[in-house]
Amino acid sequence: MRELDIVRRIRKLAESGGRHASLVRGIGDDCAILRPRANEDLAFTTDFVLEGRHFTLDRHTAGEIGHMALARSLSDLAAMGSEPVFCLVSVAVPAALSGKWLNGFYKGLLQLAREYNIALAGGDLSRFDKVIADVMCCGRVPRGKAILRSAARAGDAIYVTGALGRSKRPVPRVKEGIALRRAGVKAAIDISDGLVIDLYRLCVESGVSAELSEVPVAKGASLEDALYRGEDYELLFTAPARSRLGFARIGTVMAGEPGEIRMQGKLLEVKGWDHFDESAR
Amino acid sequence: MRELDIVRRIRKLAESGGRHASLVRGIGDDCAILRPRANEDLAFTTDFVLEGRHFTLDRHTAGEIGHMALARSLSDLAAMGSEPVFCLVSVAVPAALSGKWLNGFYKGLLQLAREYNIALAGGDLSRFDKVIADVMCCGRVPRGKAILRSAARAGDAIYVTGALGRSKRPVPRVKEGIALRRAGVKAAIDISDGLVIDLYRLCVESGVSAELSEVPVAKGASLEDALYRGEDYELLFTAPARSRLGFARIGTVMAGEPGEIRMQGKLLEVKGWDHFDESAR
Repeated sequence: MRELDIVRRIRKLAESGGRHASLVRGIGDDCAILRPRANEDLAFTTDFVLEGRHFTLDRHTAGEIGHMALARSLSDLAAMGSEPVFCLVSVAVPAALSGKWLNGFYKGLLQLAREYNIALAGGDLSRFDKVIADVMCCGRVPRGKAILRSAARAGDAIYVTGALGRSKRPVPRVKEGIALRRAGVKAAIDISDGLVIDLYRLCVESGVSAELSEVPVAKGASLEDALYRGEDYELLFTAPARSRLGFARIGTVMAGEPGEIRMQGKLLEVKGWDHFDESAR
Repeated sequence: MRELDIVRRIRKLAESGGRHASLVRGIGDDCAILRPRANEDLAFTTDFVLEGRHFTLDRHTAGEIGHMALARSLSDLAAMGSEPVFCLVSVAVPAALSGKWLNGFYKGLLQLAREYNIALAGGDLSRFDKVIADVMCCGRVPRGKAILRSAARAGDAIYVTGALGRSKRPVPRVKEGIALRRAGVKAAIDISDGLVIDLYRLCVESGVSAELSEVPVAKGASLEDALYRGEDYELLFTAPARSRLGFARIGTVMAGEPGEIRMQGKLLEVKGWDHFDESAR
């Protein structure tokens, strides 16, 4: 199948999914064109999903891989408290994979896209010897209201939006992120690489340390899983200790050495899904 | 080397390159944050560069690959007449490649970024068994002024910004694109896959056909190269025939069957750098 024909088909699929009013041009030009609204900031993030690293073709369907590719980026939008607007999808597949596979990939991705009202506005399509995808998502927040990693303050309580350690087809916490932003939450991060490493990142950006009291462990998972397994996509956020936000409190932000994380007084090792750890071994 | 350390180093490199005033947050959070100016549209594009397809590690230095990765996306911004604002860079490399290689990649990319005043605002970093990169670029244009593929009109003259067929380290025509937009040019595309296929795309989007008269052939290239070799990154644009824009006229937009391209009366076959052609063979 020719690229031009595939693009035509994707475009039809994408347009059937509706289009954000602020998207002036979608698929079919050198660039997508967005017309920003007054008084909004725009949030941008991009994430790879790679064959053999995030999925395998025998264990994941095309639709699951499309879903996963978009879910990872949506989770970053959620962490800023932003509302999804559009995505660009770059995907490369081996010649041996049929057009049907690519169709399945886009169908899985667009099903999730419709759920979150995010438009597919363009991307890139290529041949490669493995399946790789990179999804860029754009979201909007009222001006100056994005939730940041750098806004945690000593004395804040630390919360998570759900139990950790046993992710299965994780749900990006977009609605929760928007609700937290509206409730005045200033600092958050999504748990993509593991609670401890992502809390570490938030603490470093905020110049604070943290003390964990207890962590909600998902059914069938261990405390170790909850602390160090990634791909949960729950949000970790901080707020003044008396906030009644309806989520599980797991600890307290402290004024200590930036990035130090303790659990019941004991210093935790910062490890997790760090893609570059291999080279240090 | 750990991802956290690499990100810290990239961030330092990126910040030394300066930052667009409208970029509220760059590297170091879940998303980059842009504060749009009043009365502007934003253009977005993304492009892969893949080992074995666009480059090889023995024939290209890390810096050349970083340059190429950004140049491809910048060329799409140029085609819309937009001014570069920021980019997100996703890159994956094998464990066997040193931190020095990755440093070289970012240095090559950032050298070009500084030339075009585009900020590196974030991205993704992963391990993979081959080197792959995906660069998303965002540019700005005054509201409603983006140059489109769909705005060519029968009777317009067709121009290119330079000789074709022998690209070497191509220069994205960003300044030319902005100048053309200011001069009132409405329709353009960048020649990334080959003159004929990219002219075909522009014609299909505009619902027109085209007649080529003569094509400026680069020194050492053949007419066949000029018509069908990609990676030139010159801009192809259309404008009323009497426009004095200082570029080579190569033909005329016609009212015929959308997408048909003739040269001196003879119908040309639409072929070029179509990544999906293999599967049709």
